[in-house]
Amino acid sequence: MSPLGLATGSRSRFATVLLTEIDHVAIAVNDLEAAIAYYRDTFGAEVDHREVVESDGVEEALLKVADSYVQLLTPTTDSSPVAKYLERKGEGLHHIGYRVDDCAAALEAVKAQGGRVIDEAPRPGSRGTTVAFVHPKTAFGTLIELVQE
Amino acid sequence: MSPLGLATGSRSRFATVLLTEIDHVAIAVNDLEAAIAYYRDTFGAEVDHREVVESDGVEEALLKVADSYVQLLTPTTDSSPVAKYLERKGEGLHHIGYRVDDCAAALEAVKAQGGRVIDEAPRPGSRGTTVAFVHPKTAFGTLIELVQE
Repeated sequence: MSPLGLATGSRSRFATVLLTEIDHVAIAVNDLEAAIAYYRDTFGAEVDHREVVESDGVEEALLKVADSYVQLLTPTTDSSPVAKYLERKGEGLHHIGYRVDDCAAALEAVKAQGGRVIDEAPRPGSRGTTVAFVHPKTAFGTLIELVQE
Repeated sequence: MSPLGLATGSRSRFATVLLTEIDHVAIAVNDLEAAIAYYRDTFGAEVDHREVVESDGVEEALLKVADSYVQLLTPTTDSSPVAKYLERKGEGLHHIGYRVDDCAAALEAVKAQGGRVIDEAPRPGSRGTTVAFVHPKTAFGTLIELVQE
């Protein structure tokens, strides 16, 4: 214990607040047009941005909700991780993207805590962002994306 | 077609924007304390509110991220839907809560579009909210909660 009564090695208790926003919630779907229509017709949510991300083998449609997005995601190739996900688990919540000020620093924080990562270093994401994925194995089953705008 | 060249029966194209915020993303976990520690130690995200919701058989911890929450969720009874979820699917993303101005109106909008609902009428949620769940069957595999603060 320190003179202040704090446990030693408790650096982590004073971790900087790294998550500034829920950047997006990604939903894997088989039929992107049908999913877009559902959110538009039921909730009035419109597509703000649409992009094919070749490197990930997906097409995404972003629906803006306040300062966050609902990301509807469909595979463009059979070898896409999202194609495999749909085959194995069916449609539904796929990952959560947290907005961070510094993707590299946030990724290092994950590694420093023993977290397993998918991307060893930040890489380009959609709409000009810089991103890195954290493996669900050490993140309570949740695929986490760190997103720097 | 109308004189303006708009397809008739397209009321839905002018649906009111009902989703004002991603209220929360719920993550089902086996060990609530461990999950809280993970988010605190890795990302500096602290518990803003904690509550046992007897009616749902869950305990939840809300971590504030901007105007949204990460909701860590664990069952308090074996018969809790979240207990069954963990058994069947394991830990991970469980549902998404969208903030709405009027839960009853949003629920009606879902029904009007042929959406299947879990709650036929709004009911009390945690932290004094009014909520209703939409069935994943007609929502592209996503369990959706409508949350009125």
